[in-house]
Amino acid sequence: MRYYTNVSDLGDLQAALTEALEVKKHRYDYQHLGKNKTALLIFFNNSLRTRLSTQKAAQNLGMNTIVLDVNAGAWKLETERGVVMDGDKAEHLLEAIPVMGCYADIIGVRSFARFESKKDDYEEKILSQFIKYSGKPVFSMECATGHPLQAFADIITIEEHKEVKRPKVVMSWAPHPGRLPQAVPNSFAQFAVAAGYEVVITHPHGYELDPRFTAGATIEYDQMKAFEGADFVYGKNWSAFQDEFYGKNLEKDFPGQFNEDWRSWTIGARQMAVTNYAHFMHCLPVRRNMIVTDDVIEGPRSLVIPEAANREISAETVIKRMLEDLD
Amino acid sequence: MRYYTNVSDLGDLQAALTEALEVKKHRYDYQHLGKNKTALLIFFNNSLRTRLSTQKAAQNLGMNTIVLDVNAGAWKLETERGVVMDGDKAEHLLEAIPVMGCYADIIGVRSFARFESKKDDYEEKILSQFIKYSGKPVFSMECATGHPLQAFADIITIEEHKEVKRPKVVMSWAPHPGRLPQAVPNSFAQFAVAAGYEVVITHPHGYELDPRFTAGATIEYDQMKAFEGADFVYGKNWSAFQDEFYGKNLEKDFPGQFNEDWRSWTIGARQMAVTNYAHFMHCLPVRRNMIVTDDVIEGPRSLVIPEAANREISAETVIKRMLEDLD
Amino acid sequence: MRYYTNVSDLGDLQAALTEALEVKKHRYDYQHLGKNKTALLIFFNNSLRTRLSTQKAAQNLGMNTIVLDVNAGAWKLETERGVVMDGDKAEHLLEAIPVMGCYADIIGVRSFARFESKKDDYEEKILSQFIKYSGKPVFSMECATGHPLQAFADIITIEEHKEVKRPKVVMSWAPHPGRLPQAVPNSFAQFAVAAGYEVVITHPHGYELDPRFTAGATIEYDQMKAFEGADFVYGKNWSAFQDEFYGKNLEKDFPGQFNEDWRSWTIGARQMAVTNYAHFMHCLPVRRNMIVTDDVIEGPRSLVIPEAANREISAETVIKRMLEDLD
Repeated sequence: MRYYTNVSDLGDLQAALTEALEVKKHRYDYQHLGKNKTALLIFFNNSLRTRLSTQKAAQNLGMNTIVLDVNAGAWKLETERGVVMDGDKAEHLLEAIPVMGCYADIIGVRSFARFESKKDDYEEKILSQFIKYSGKPVFSMECATGHPLQAFADIITIEEHKEVKRPKVVMSWAPHPGRLPQAVPNSFAQFAVAAGYEVVITHPHGYELDPRFTAGATIEYDQMKAFEGADFVYGKNWSAFQDEFYGKNLEKDFPGQFNEDWRSWTIGARQMAVTNYAHFMHCLPVRRNMIVTDDVIEGPRSLVIPEAANREISAETVIKRMLEDLD
Repeated sequence: MRYYTNVSDLGDLQAALTEALEVKKHRYDYQHLGKNKTALLIFFNNSLRTRLSTQKAAQNLGMNTIVLDVNAGAWKLETERGVVMDGDKAEHLLEAIPVMGCYADIIGVRSFARFESKKDDYEEKILSQFIKYSGKPVFSMECATGHPLQAFADIITIEEHKEVKRPKVVMSWAPHPGRLPQAVPNSFAQFAVAAGYEVVITHPHGYELDPRFTAGATIEYDQMKAFEGADFVYGKNWSAFQDEFYGKNLEKDFPGQFNEDWRSWTIGARQMAVTNYAHFMHCLPVRRNMIVTDDVIEGPRSLVIPEAANREISAETVIKRMLEDLD
Repeated sequence: MRYYTNVSDLGDLQAALTEALEVKKHRYDYQHLGKNKTALLIFFNNSLRTRLSTQKAAQNLGMNTIVLDVNAGAWKLETERGVVMDGDKAEHLLEAIPVMGCYADIIGVRSFARFESKKDDYEEKILSQFIKYSGKPVFSMECATGHPLQAFADIITIEEHKEVKRPKVVMSWAPHPGRLPQAVPNSFAQFAVAAGYEVVITHPHGYELDPRFTAGATIEYDQMKAFEGADFVYGKNWSAFQDEFYGKNLEKDFPGQFNEDWRSWTIGARQMAVTNYAHFMHCLPVRRNMIVTDDVIEGPRSLVIPEAANREISAETVIKRMLEDLD
């Protein structure tokens, strides 16, 4: 595997899931692959789970790891060719990225959507430049439009806990005080459909996601109807994708303009009651009593900690494949 | 050993000291214990000695180490259950701590007293939640009320330098421009008494420490009298513990209200002259000519650098014991 | 090797270059030297290439690495003896440096010129104190007056690409919007002369460098004349060295006072046309279209990425020699 930005990079998803469960049982058995190899993990944005789990995964594989925190304020990169660089940008990405490639065997990149330009975000301007110019294998540690290590970990978790062959998996929008990217819901939708589950996505009008990511899922605007008979419920907030509202929090940014009882979407006992004793899932960090009530997230069917634990496994499986395919 | 927050966690202190001196001679001989084990070192506050010495200790033991700097401003944790998290706190500790536990075999925590609530500080609100929720062995890298790795290193240093079986050890308050925690004096008092030394604590009226930590030591308000015949002098500043002055610098916060010549407490040739050619000790960082004069700290009896060097040994001994007791 | 601050620390430069090329071919073959040894890399200033390449070099050698970012604002060091430390400086370097030395086998230091005092800068106040007080081998990762790992990497790169035995190497000043140190041009001049090249330095009047570093090079104020027949062109900006202008950008700080067309110094096709199809070199980060045009830096003769890649090799060669000479 040369790049990992998308479910399709895994090839046969069932084979990848089988391999991941094998890695989980034998996580220190592949250190011959990582010997004298360096993983460079580049963070343009903050991170807790990704930082820890990806370092752990690379170290499990016997790699050296170097973590680089790029403070966007202190180290501005010029991205346009032809500019006279007499301003505040000290380095051009056309130098910075190949230089980083010099010292790494495999590169992980975290770079959130900036919500300045939908086009830039959805073209994955930063990630694609690393792929183009670093000369090394590159994997996404959450970029503008996807979080494929999270989604892979989520599907591993569903496989470990599902009680029927083809579970009903419901991803539900829920309220949040901020403006969150669409990366996690995009990737989860895509992975869940690829895994062959019955996938239903529910959200208020105005929060439709990019159909390129939700193809194969059913969109249901009635949250209670969506939850009926669900085996897994994935709670998540995201901001609007539609051009006219891109990156907006419709409740906060357009007060009173949408005829919606936003806070009724918080996932609690009322919604869970109509499910098939569903497991609750979330990628974390989670706003309690906005996304989900204390009772549900602390309940016996909550999978939020197992999902986080599987981040180590999804990362190790991806990096292992990259190491196997190094020249 | 499952937790390390206190001298009592070491069990027989003499045995622990013997083990520490053995570790010091053979510091790279225990790497089978740390192979494929990860130490996660979490800093809620700044650190120099602790950061370096604890990383070194874990690496001596063959462990992988991951350092996490929690910027209290950027990554605020909600601690109360039932709150609707629509403010500035992005994650609840009930998720954050078990997640960190997922990726670690052993966790070190640094979290200073905040001086907002004496009850919160003395209940070790942060440290105790890591112990309760992380699912992993936890050790203190200085928390609100204690600094047991420092105190253990200090006692190792005394054992290496004592010239009589039961030395007289004097811990003296000294002036400082800030408001310092009681963590270091609390732990040093407790360890020195546990080690069987003759322990005298001297400080101005108003700077009495928590008697649960100083039990077994003699309190002497006359600094010169306290120093008479001392074999070791431990200089240290701390803020007030008494409820009405908790966390205060009495000189700065109550100017003129205490009938005390604060600056006379700076440890210099005058006080050292009445000792038994005492060694001078301090945990560092130290304010020269506030806590101690240049001459004393640079003199032939100063142990401040050997104390710092023994931080590697106290940390290695504690982590070694934790590794030995892992499931 | 005990210290590395200067070309003379390498002894016979030809032997060092031969060794470096050997290290490049066998970079993982010296791990017996680094086993159970710790490299402490201390950054008083930001760094991208140095941070990554030096960590990589130490890890190639099997060492443990600890990176310490000293935030100059948060952790102020007192440097004068005799001061009553009742201000904002929490620790004296006379303690901080030996403490850092306790936990390291080899120490790297990055500390830029501050331009507050030419005397302090050119006496290398920070670096020299690490050499004096740490008790450990110390190497410069760019200090006030030199960047010897960069210059060593540059000379390795020239050796790999030169087509004549004694190439003509031209170092040219070029414009920049900031106030840059003289460290890189000082070291490059010194190394290039020591390597036996024909060295020409060209810059506008007012930008004369310290003659202790440029001894053996020819100074030519006419840039076009300097470039004639050059085999290698090294572009670089630096601020003024002369006492009356020390650390100044003459274009910005004295507008109109110098009769100079500053922007004509940007290295482009016009200058390169008179060379012997010269290679272009720069230490990076580079301001495009200030220092050099897009066409030249992206052209087939640009060596900026190979120079960066050789930073790993120069660092590994230096650290290898230090490891060989440890007690």
